[in-house]
Amino acid sequence: MSAGHTPEPLGVHFESVPEWLRGDGESADVVVSSRARLARNLAGHPFPARSTQAQRKTTLKLCKDWLSKAGLSAQTTCISLHQAAPSERTLLVERHLISKPLAKGRPLPDAQDDDRPPGETDPRAVVVGLPDEKLAVMINEEDHLRIQAISSGLDLREVLRRAIDADDRIEAGLDYAFDEQFGYLTACPTNVGSGLRLSCMVHLPALKMTGELEKVKRAAADMNLAVRGFYGEGSDAIGDLFQVSNQTALGKSEDQILHELDGEIIPRIVEYERFARKTLMSKRRAVVEDQCWRAFGTLTRARLMGAEEAMQLLSQVRLGVSMGLIRDTTVRIVNHLMLLVQPGHLQRVVGHEMDQEHRKEARATLLRTRLGG
Amino acid sequence: MSAGHTPEPLGVHFESVPEWLRGDGESADVVVSSRARLARNLAGHPFPARSTQAQRKTTLKLCKDWLSKAGLSAQTTCISLHQAAPSERTLLVERHLISKPLAKGRPLPDAQDDDRPPGETDPRAVVVGLPDEKLAVMINEEDHLRIQAISSGLDLREVLRRAIDADDRIEAGLDYAFDEQFGYLTACPTNVGSGLRLSCMVHLPALKMTGELEKVKRAAADMNLAVRGFYGEGSDAIGDLFQVSNQTALGKSEDQILHELDGEIIPRIVEYERFARKTLMSKRRAVVEDQCWRAFGTLTRARLMGAEEAMQLLSQVRLGVSMGLIRDTTVRIVNHLMLLVQPGHLQRVVGHEMDQEHRKEARATLLRTRLGG
Repeated sequence: MSAGHTPEPLGVHFESVPEWLRGDGESADVVVSSRARLARNLAGHPFPARSTQAQRKTTLKLCKDWLSKAGLSAQTTCISLHQAAPSERTLLVERHLISKPLAKGRPLPDAQDDDRPPGETDPRAVVVGLPDEKLAVMINEEDHLRIQAISSGLDLREVLRRAIDADDRIEAGLDYAFDEQFGYLTACPTNVGSGLRLSCMVHLPALKMTGELEKVKRAAADMNLAVRGFYGEGSDAIGDLFQVSNQTALGKSEDQILHELDGEIIPRIVEYERFARKTLMSKRRAVVEDQCWRAFGTLTRARLMGAEEAMQLLSQVRLGVSMGLIRDTTVRIVNHLMLLVQPGHLQRVVGHEMDQEHRKEARATLLRTRLGG
Repeated sequence: MSAGHTPEPLGVHFESVPEWLRGDGESADVVVSSRARLARNLAGHPFPARSTQAQRKTTLKLCKDWLSKAGLSAQTTCISLHQAAPSERTLLVERHLISKPLAKGRPLPDAQDDDRPPGETDPRAVVVGLPDEKLAVMINEEDHLRIQAISSGLDLREVLRRAIDADDRIEAGLDYAFDEQFGYLTACPTNVGSGLRLSCMVHLPALKMTGELEKVKRAAADMNLAVRGFYGEGSDAIGDLFQVSNQTALGKSEDQILHELDGEIIPRIVEYERFARKTLMSKRRAVVEDQCWRAFGTLTRARLMGAEEAMQLLSQVRLGVSMGLIRDTTVRIVNHLMLLVQPGHLQRVVGHEMDQEHRKEARATLLRTRLGG
């Protein structure tokens, strides 16, 4: 059913709000988005990290060719990352369409231990479902294929369904590395089996304020969950945003993983955060209200604004909006701004590259304009 | 020429802007107000600190009676501070009409070393020129009489003229303690002679930001000047406001003191502060603009606000307005708010007494309302 890749440069509308930041769906006061990711590899081809440049080119071509015909979405775009500009790769990372490692690729080859021609980076790509970006398939990341379905709010069952649907369509044209005993084979042993990672991006400002966040993080670790920052593995928790996901796939069925996260863990985290918000409202309402409004005041008046401070202030405003304390903006606008204040998007909106100082000015102007300051 | 004291409770219109905070006059970008104070005592009566209760009553009556007839101002009010409510005394201190020591009086008497009847505090008063509060005469402070003339902006010659005029009118009906060799006799030796203290309230936020404030303060000390905080002796420099005055009166004529301050020192401080502002504008404009606007954003959005933080933020906004960076308010409004955020005035505006937490809420509401947040 695919109309093929779009002809325009990258196809992605970088100034639009992607699906996962729409700010609606179930439990959207706490759960920003839900994501399912399936790791898959082609049978008879070494994993990317063990491939020669020629082998990578082969797997990339195989995947690209089939994905353009597989009917993954009404419309898709395929972006060759080894040909994309650094600024374009940054934009894709900021939209969570590709991982930082895929954006970066391996370091440029030197003559010693690399078969790549000088100046030639890893052949790699991402296929994105348009216009809503609800689907993204990374090619030649850690695995040959990483299929991601994403949705706003708490919607794990649906994202899993969509990821499996995409997986079925891809499997119809490509031969997967599969073992009767272990299941799908993956580069990292934690993904072997279903290759599934389910995750939610949760916004936990109240747990942070009441000092209970560490407790929740420890409890999550005890349940074998990973709690990561806004940009995944190794990133900081900016803006009180956390990605909660299953740590391993091995030995668990898709249904088990779904049941754990969707039926138990995420609803419990939502409950904790909501309880913390209620507690704040009944016991420290004036302080919370003050904090949220001060954040709004700073965002609508500052003339210089760093990305990290912007995220922290937007987090406070998001809390204020979710709690009904601030009615001057919406969760959707705040979510979108969390994307637009990132360096890549900021420069895209302004229309040219800037050094850090000029970005600070442009970021403050953007926030004032969009929040009506 | 006096129409006598007004009949209403205190006579002072506490919700109005007093003359000294009007925000106009010469060099009003830096100089908030100018003040002349003359210390005088009655011949044949011991200084207040050495008087019995009966003697204090006598001097109070003598002064009050004459001052009501002396024609000091088109209209005056005489407020008996030993009969005023504590909240009223606080209001008068916040308006700089009386000093903290006069508001407080001596501690209540105990039987041992005090001739005052139990529960009876020092007889003391202030006579205020209405409606502009350009003149205030304290009775039974450290000296029997402290005559103060005040004006907005840099206007030392005029306030001295008005203080001397009031002094002449008072001297026409009261016999001053005067020595041919020393001049006017006062309780503290530093005031002996002319009994004159000339002072300016200056706003020095740019010197604070450029780190040059300490240098200016040291230079002032070297020139035998006193640099005090917003509420005079021993008070902190809140809101980057400082009172600069001559340290001693002894051995100097009124003209010498006037010439030193009006002709040299204050203009030089004004010049320093203006130069610091220009430097900031040319070298760190973005940072200053950001700081001023953030202050404005916080003042117009916060839900809880302490008095000290309010003063600091108002100082930043005052700087922004003076530098032409902020056009959303005026120096006069900011000056007035510096008065209204003080606990006494705040409670007066709201109409009832409040504990500190409720004052924080009321202060934030007042600031939002008055600054159009």
